[in-house]
Amino acid sequence: MTTLGATLVSVEPGLVEIALRPAPAVSQQHGFVHAGAISAIADSAAGYAALSLMPAGTGVLTTEFKINLLAPGAGELIVARGRVVKSGRTLTLAQSEVFAQRDGQEKLIALLTATLMTIQGRDGVSD
Amino acid sequence: MTTLGATLVSVEPGLVEIALRPAPAVSQQHGFVHAGAISAIADSAAGYAALSLMPAGTGVLTTEFKINLLAPGAGELIVARGRVVKSGRTLTLAQSEVFAQRDGQEKLIALLTATLMTIQGRDGVSD
Amino acid sequence: MTTLGATLVSVEPGLVEIALRPAPAVSQQHGFVHAGAISAIADSAAGYAALSLMPAGTGVLTTEFKINLLAPGAGELIVARGRVVKSGRTLTLAQSEVFAQRDGQEKLIALLTATLMTIQGRDGVSD
Amino acid sequence: MTTLGATLVSVEPGLVEIALRPAPAVSQQHGFVHAGAISAIADSAAGYAALSLMPAGTGVLTTEFKINLLAPGAGELIVARGRVVKSGRTLTLAQSEVFAQRDGQEKLIALLTATLMTIQGRDGVSD
Repeated sequence: MTTLGATLVSVEPGLVEIALRPAPAVSQQHGFVHAGAISAIADSAAGYAALSLMPAGTGVLTTEFKINLLAPGAGELIVARGRVVKSGRTLTLAQSEVFAQRDGQEKLIALLTATLMTIQGRDGVSD
Repeated sequence: MTTLGATLVSVEPGLVEIALRPAPAVSQQHGFVHAGAISAIADSAAGYAALSLMPAGTGVLTTEFKINLLAPGAGELIVARGRVVKSGRTLTLAQSEVFAQRDGQEKLIALLTATLMTIQGRDGVSD
Repeated sequence: MTTLGATLVSVEPGLVEIALRPAPAVSQQHGFVHAGAISAIADSAAGYAALSLMPAGTGVLTTEFKINLLAPGAGELIVARGRVVKSGRTLTLAQSEVFAQRDGQEKLIALLTATLMTIQGRDGVSD
Repeated sequence: MTTLGATLVSVEPGLVEIALRPAPAVSQQHGFVHAGAISAIADSAAGYAALSLMPAGTGVLTTEFKINLLAPGAGELIVARGRVVKSGRTLTLAQSEVFAQRDGQEKLIALLTATLMTIQGRDGVSD
């Protein structure tokens, strides 16, 4: 996240917001924020939302996600809001909506759905 | 890509390879390459594969992708190989397989499927 | 839909509900409603939700969808609720939540995200 | 599968082919095979491919899938070919390509990626 210049805005149980200020390092050839950067903050917001409902000492790994990129990532600030759809002992389903803020208005630019796997210690991350 | 430390290894018509050398900046809390970085190189390999079949002056935008993360991104080098599944005037479907290389062996760690939209000039990227 | 034994429960602008009463014909080897049948009603609910916002004479085709199956399709009634996330001239993004009803309670069993393409007359469906 | 009029054409370890002869019961309003029916045979081909690599007495459930529908399902025969991408003890990743056959030619009309969960007895399918 630091690499991208993203910041954690807020964390509530099952709800997390991450913001990214567009900069050349995360932009693609047309001047928009790169799909990879949008996916990264959306995935992180979903992952932290899942983590926020887990006991201390637990970790999460993304096992799969799908993202629809609805409009170019252009604006003063890109905000990803993750929420848990269904939490389980092993697998949690979460979604993130990503908005571009410009001139005081928000526009939905992406929707991500992710499956997160709970890991305890290093269990579950070995092959 | 520069932000991530990724390099374009090879480009053939419909086939592109991108490599990423794991570093702290692209790793997550367990020391593996972050899902966001793996997605970014996989998406880029798919996008460049699509672009490699298009006329000069054309661009591509990812409209949606899905990625399955099969194993942690641990190894000396992470390699994404993108290929075009079906190319069309407006939409192209492409896939990327991502491998982790370690001790001279390759292991499949992720599979991405992406829809890319052709853009000419700035057409198609306006709302 | 008739083949599956599904019925259209309600249609409001951007919101559609479809119900399926479990029967042997749509069940798989473990007695649960088949993933294919759950996907079909979820996709249809998303498609009709998209269609409900379009002018008369317009049709829709699903261009891609993703579904997460969260729990087995077991219950007295399976209900899919589709809603439009973002509608556009050419492409609409919609989601469906699928619930199993049993003993007066509802449980989320699936989440689908679909991209629908607007078609007018036979335009857009030719290759 | 019987409901749809689909037949299992061939089963090899990790490779399964299912065919569907288009009929009014599985067609949508424009005369093409319904996306739900295409998804169902694609998902089944992926599921049986996964099952073909497992010990006797084991079952599979689809936990998530993604399908891209590339062209309308029009032709004399619709054929889904499933293959295992990566098999694991608990989770298997499989893909299906779906082709429409017409006048002796095949055309790719859909690509599905599915995650299948191994179940033994009734374990894993309870909540």
